[in-house]
Amino acid sequence: MVHIVGWGHTPFGKLGDMSLEDLIREAGTEALAHAGVAPGDVDGIWIGHFNGGMVPDGFPASLALAIDPALRFRPATRLENACASGSAAVFAARNAILAGEARIALVIGVEKMTHLPTADVATALGHASYQKEEAGLSFPQVFAQFAKAYFERYGDATEALAMIASKNHANGARNPLAQLRKPLDVAFCAAESDRNPMIAPPLKKTDCSLVSDGAAAIVMFADDIAATMPRAVNLRAAVQVNDFLPMSARDVLAFEGPREAMRRAMQAAGVGLSDLDLAEVHDCFTIAELLIYEAMGLTEPGRGIDVLKEGTVYPGGALPINLSGGLKAKGHPVGATGVSMHVMVSRQLTGDAGEMQAPDAATGLVFNMGGSGVANYCSILEAVRT
Amino acid sequence: MVHIVGWGHTPFGKLGDMSLEDLIREAGTEALAHAGVAPGDVDGIWIGHFNGGMVPDGFPASLALAIDPALRFRPATRLENACASGSAAVFAARNAILAGEARIALVIGVEKMTHLPTADVATALGHASYQKEEAGLSFPQVFAQFAKAYFERYGDATEALAMIASKNHANGARNPLAQLRKPLDVAFCAAESDRNPMIAPPLKKTDCSLVSDGAAAIVMFADDIAATMPRAVNLRAAVQVNDFLPMSARDVLAFEGPREAMRRAMQAAGVGLSDLDLAEVHDCFTIAELLIYEAMGLTEPGRGIDVLKEGTVYPGGALPINLSGGLKAKGHPVGATGVSMHVMVSRQLTGDAGEMQAPDAATGLVFNMGGSGVANYCSILEAVRT
Repeated sequence: MVHIVGWGHTPFGKLGDMSLEDLIREAGTEALAHAGVAPGDVDGIWIGHFNGGMVPDGFPASLALAIDPALRFRPATRLENACASGSAAVFAARNAILAGEARIALVIGVEKMTHLPTADVATALGHASYQKEEAGLSFPQVFAQFAKAYFERYGDATEALAMIASKNHANGARNPLAQLRKPLDVAFCAAESDRNPMIAPPLKKTDCSLVSDGAAAIVMFADDIAATMPRAVNLRAAVQVNDFLPMSARDVLAFEGPREAMRRAMQAAGVGLSDLDLAEVHDCFTIAELLIYEAMGLTEPGRGIDVLKEGTVYPGGALPINLSGGLKAKGHPVGATGVSMHVMVSRQLTGDAGEMQAPDAATGLVFNMGGSGVANYCSILEAVRT
Repeated sequence: MVHIVGWGHTPFGKLGDMSLEDLIREAGTEALAHAGVAPGDVDGIWIGHFNGGMVPDGFPASLALAIDPALRFRPATRLENACASGSAAVFAARNAILAGEARIALVIGVEKMTHLPTADVATALGHASYQKEEAGLSFPQVFAQFAKAYFERYGDATEALAMIASKNHANGARNPLAQLRKPLDVAFCAAESDRNPMIAPPLKKTDCSLVSDGAAAIVMFADDIAATMPRAVNLRAAVQVNDFLPMSARDVLAFEGPREAMRRAMQAAGVGLSDLDLAEVHDCFTIAELLIYEAMGLTEPGRGIDVLKEGTVYPGGALPINLSGGLKAKGHPVGATGVSMHVMVSRQLTGDAGEMQAPDAATGLVFNMGGSGVANYCSILEAVRT
C-alpha cells in the first residue's frame, strides 16, 4: 500500500511573476517540509505537466532538481495525459513504490497559463483533442456539444448547471488557495448577462473553469515507513481507464470512461458510494460535473439535478462534491489539477481542511479527467490517522 | 523480472504520408503480432513522445487505442524526458509490471519531425534546453560547446569524431530500417566540404544525428508468463539518473549523469564491461558517443579515440557500439529512439539482427539520453533463450 504523507500547494490564479520552475520549486519545497523529508532521502520525482505549447519548457522534469542540490542524480520524469497529467504523475509514483524502485516519491503537478492571451490558451488546450477530426475546436465548444446532447435527450438543464456553478463558487470562498473566492448565486449563474456572457452555447462563463497558474505537490511513502510519519493517507485504490480519443468513436453522454474508472476504483477499494465522505471531481465545465454525478451512480442518467435539489453534493450533504471550489472556483492549472485534488482530499482526511472541512471525513474519492472523458483516473483515499 | 517478448519498428526516415497516429498504430500492431499477443490481453500502454511543438497532437496516449478496439478502457500514458522519452516509457511499463498493475505491457516510442523546416525542428528541440539561460541555443550549438571544451582540454579530436561517424554510417548500411544506408569514409567525415558543411563549429554535418519520422514498439511481460513465449529478453537492470537541467550547473566534460547511470546499471545487473557483447548508445552527436565511451569506463577521460583505434567498438571488436547505425545513420525520431534501442539490442540477443548480427550476443547495454546528459537511462538486457 502507498501513503500520502505531506503536501504543498501554491495559490491558484494569476501568478505572473512566477516561472514554471518557481512554481515547481515552491510546491515541492513545501511538500517536503510538510512531510518532514530531507531532499536527499527522496528516491524519485514525478512531474505532471500538460504544456501543449503554453510555455517553451518542453523538458521540465529535471527542473525539480532545483528544489535542492541533494536531488541530483534522482530519476525525474514527466507524465502527460492532458488535464489528468497530475494524476498520471501520482499513479506513476505509486507504481514505482509498489515496484520497489522507490520508497519515498515526490510528485508535482504544474501549469503556467495566464501569461497568454485567452485565444492562445484555447489553442494550446485544443491540442488535447483529436486533431484529425476536431482541430480548431476549443474545449468550451467540445463540452458545449455534451451539454447540447444532454439538453436534447433530457430537457433543458440550465438550472442544474447554474446550481453546480453556484455551489462551487460558494465552496471556493472557503478555500484560501482558490483563484475565485466570491459566491455567485444560482440566478446569476443561470442567466446570460454582460457579466456572464455565452461562451459556447449553452455554456456561459460561469459554466467554464478558469485559466490559472499553479502547482501542487505530494510526498508518497511506501507502507513500511509511512507508519513513522506524523500523518498518512492511504491511497487505497488507483484506477486509470483510457477511452478512444475521437469524440466520433464514443457515445458522449454515456461517459463510459469516467463510469468505468469510478466503478473499478470503488470495487478495488471495496467501498460503495455510501462509504464516501467527500469527492473532488473534474468540473472543467459544469456539464462535466453533472455527467460525473450520473457516471458515479449517484443518480440515474438525466437525473443529475436530483442530487443538487436533495442537497446531497453540498457541504453537509451525504456526499459533498468539490468542497475546494473545484476547477470552477479553485482554478485549473491543468497539469496541477490532479495533484491538487489528491492534496485537497488528503487535507480533509487528516482534519486539515480549515473552513472547507467536512466533519469526520474518513474516505474520499478523486476523479480527474483528461480530454472529454478520454483519460480517466479515479483514486480512493482513506484516513490512516489524523 | 520483466521480459521483452516482441517488437515492432517502422523504417526511420522521411515518412511524409504517415501521421503520428499511423506511426503509433504500425509499430504497435507489429509488436503485438510479433509477440503473439491478442490486443485484448494488453493491460496497459505507455507512449514515449517528446513533441516540443513539432505536431499539434498534445495528448497522444489514447491514439494507441486505435490499434485495436479491444484496447478500449486500458490505461494509456505518455512519458516525456526529451530524447529519452522512449526509455521513460519502457521504464514506466517495467514499474507497472513489477508493481503487479500489469502483466502484459505495450510500449511505443514515436516522433514525427520531417514535415517541418529544419529551423522549426531546431526550435522545437531547443525546448529541451534550460530556457532561462539557454533559450535560442540549438542542440548542435549545445553539443558544439561540449566538443570545444573537449578539444581545449584534450586536443583536437576531429579524427575520433570522424571515425565514429564513419563507423555508424557503415553499420547503418547493414540495417534495412536505417534512414541513411550509405557508408562514408573517415576522410570525408573529417573534412569540411560542400557536402559536409560546418553546422556548429567544430561539429560538421556528419557529426550530427538525423531529423526523422518513426516509431518503435516492444511488448513486455511479467516473469511468470514470459516462460510461455517463443522468445524472451530479460531486462536485467534499468537505472535512471537525472542531472541538473542548466548546463551552467554541470561540468559538461565530466558527463556525470551518463557515468552514474551506466555504473549503477552494470552494478545492479552484476556485470562488468567485459561481460557486455554489444551496446546501443546515444550518439545524437559524435562528441556524445566519444564522451559515452569514457563515461562507460572503456577508456580514461580524453582517450576515447583509443577504443576506435584498437577496434574495440567496431563490428567484431570486444564491444561493438551502435551496430544499428545509431542515431547518426539509423535516424533519431526523438521519442522513438529509446524504444528502438531496446528493440535493436533485443534482436541481437535473440539472433534476429540479420546483417547487423553480433555472433553469440548474450548481454547488451542500452544508454539513452535526454538533453545534454540530463535524463540518463541505462538498461542491461540479457538473452533468455533464442
